[in-house]
Amino acid sequence: MSFFEQLKFNADGLIPAIVQEQSTGRVLMMAWMNRASLETTLATGKTHFWSRSRKKFWMKGETSGHIQAVKDIAFDCDGDTLLIQVEQTGAACHEGYRSCFFRSVENGGPSFKITEPQLKPPGDIYGKGQP
Amino acid sequence: MSFFEQLKFNADGLIPAIVQEQSTGRVLMMAWMNRASLETTLATGKTHFWSRSRKKFWMKGETSGHIQAVKDIAFDCDGDTLLIQVEQTGAACHEGYRSCFFRSVENGGPSFKITEPQLKPPGDIYGKGQP
Repeated sequence: MSFFEQLKFNADGLIPAIVQEQSTGRVLMMAWMNRASLETTLATGKTHFWSRSRKKFWMKGETSGHIQAVKDIAFDCDGDTLLIQVEQTGAACHEGYRSCFFRSVENGGPSFKITEPQLKPPGDIYGKGQP
Repeated sequence: MSFFEQLKFNADGLIPAIVQEQSTGRVLMMAWMNRASLETTLATGKTHFWSRSRKKFWMKGETSGHIQAVKDIAFDCDGDTLLIQVEQTGAACHEGYRSCFFRSVENGGPSFKITEPQLKPPGDIYGKGQP
């Protein structure tokens, strides 16, 4: 049986993909895939997503060089979420942090703190003219 | 500044929450929270979610006893995903697996395999009369 038959894409044809660094267990980011980006991820061994804000197919690292080499693709009991194990080049986060989850709630909230160093300022990743 | 001001709930007032086992790094599940379930999670130290299918506020483990004790709540750069570190009692998955992500794509797809043992059959968790 194909695992595609187990998956439930939402009304927009999308499924959330959690990306985890296999070597450390660190959760790096969450992004959305459509069927085409999942198929391309499988075919190339590099993560591809669908940007809901830009309405655009994109390869992680296409601008920054911070690609993700795919090691495993798991899916959950309901078939509505993917968990992708990768090895990450550079910073996963567009703000220059290793993980997008670089802020945690402090002492039960509502304050929060930054929990890891910024590897690079975003201007060094994408060029000064880009957001 | 309150971390709530950093969060973006979607058009339905929901935000996806990735749940990770702090001691092992295992990603256990992904579920959705509204503001009330996040506030209750913070206040009680146990994860609470919003069920989109049942349209119901629920505490993880309320029927099964498989509760999640919250150790950390992180949020991503875009403020549209939560990452919650927990210590899990029993199986996180309603199908009796430790993690909901118990199936992985095999050899680049489309076949898949089960990657971990089932701890309990679902009937032993929820009672024979329940799904």
